[in-house]
Amino acid sequence: MPQGVPDTIPDDGLTTRQRRNLPVLAVHTGDGKGKSTAAFGMAMRAWNAGMRVAVFQFVKSAKWRVGEESALTALGDVHEQTGRGGPVEWHKMGQGWSWLRANADHDADHADAARAGWAEIARRLADEQHDFYVLDEFTYPLHWGWVDTDAVVSTLCARPGRQHVVITGRRAPTALLDAADLVTEMHKIAHPMDAGRKGQKGIEW
Amino acid sequence: MPQGVPDTIPDDGLTTRQRRNLPVLAVHTGDGKGKSTAAFGMAMRAWNAGMRVAVFQFVKSAKWRVGEESALTALGDVHEQTGRGGPVEWHKMGQGWSWLRANADHDADHADAARAGWAEIARRLADEQHDFYVLDEFTYPLHWGWVDTDAVVSTLCARPGRQHVVITGRRAPTALLDAADLVTEMHKIAHPMDAGRKGQKGIEW
Repeated sequence: MPQGVPDTIPDDGLTTRQRRNLPVLAVHTGDGKGKSTAAFGMAMRAWNAGMRVAVFQFVKSAKWRVGEESALTALGDVHEQTGRGGPVEWHKMGQGWSWLRANADHDADHADAARAGWAEIARRLADEQHDFYVLDEFTYPLHWGWVDTDAVVSTLCARPGRQHVVITGRRAPTALLDAADLVTEMHKIAHPMDAGRKGQKGIEW
Repeated sequence: MPQGVPDTIPDDGLTTRQRRNLPVLAVHTGDGKGKSTAAFGMAMRAWNAGMRVAVFQFVKSAKWRVGEESALTALGDVHEQTGRGGPVEWHKMGQGWSWLRANADHDADHADAARAGWAEIARRLADEQHDFYVLDEFTYPLHWGWVDTDAVVSTLCARPGRQHVVITGRRAPTALLDAADLVTEMHKIAHPMDAGRKGQKGIEW
């Protein structure tokens, strides 16, 4: 609804334009499919708008999301070659964060690796290094207490400039949901796995 | 969950591999965001798997989804230039279906245009012209009775080969949901529009 008219106009001293350009913190949660997929779809849009896109995958297996990674980095290549869209970075915990290549110790401990990932994201937010961040499956390190939710919420709420952040995963902590501008819950109603079908390439991953 | 193990093994005479490779009919519905975005995210994965992707937008305005269209057609260009991924077609009702360019009469009547769109999709399904179809906002012509739901369900259930179809939109008819292998309902929990903020480029469209 690009031309949608809000129901209420808040008394916040901002112009419509200022309000429109506020950075968005979105959370996709729930037990259904599409949480990450919708985040990557948003990243496509952000790419098209020329935003600097960065994905941080907080998952154990480096094999996940190979399709999205390949497609989004292909769009990053298009940007490098033609200037169209924006640059794309893709970082994954599953094979050790790229900026920690020289220090593989973090691979051994997922909690340490998750903390190292968040610390890097916090640095990048402070530097306004990207315009659109996907923190894929980041709710799990929060849920498990590996990364402190209150610290994350404080950092996100205080982030400078106009940096959009989308966080995906089940069991999003309440404090994170409360801080988000946009929360969507994906509910599973029917799924091929229920009928004894396994996932397939191009559909599930 | 690419390596997930189903809870039950159906007694359908199929091998696991045959069952895995069954074509998927997915519906993304509900009042929340992410229905179409997740479908386009799936299309990225399908592209990466080399599938022939086709999007049919059943929306009035040709301005919608410009970010997704631009990004997915950029991936189609990558395929044409390098062979990477699969080909991508993008058709929209909002500016008259491309295959009807010579006959702009359909623009005048959205119900006729929707019927013409579905008739073309049915032809392409019969010809196995694509591997991955997104029928974006197709639930509305069904809900409004412009296109007959029972005929659509019959055609989809009888489609030959291995063609995946994803249908998005609110108010999906029950017969469609019953026929689908995968139904996800997106629920809105919080949205910037509630706080009087309008949509912004790269985030909302």
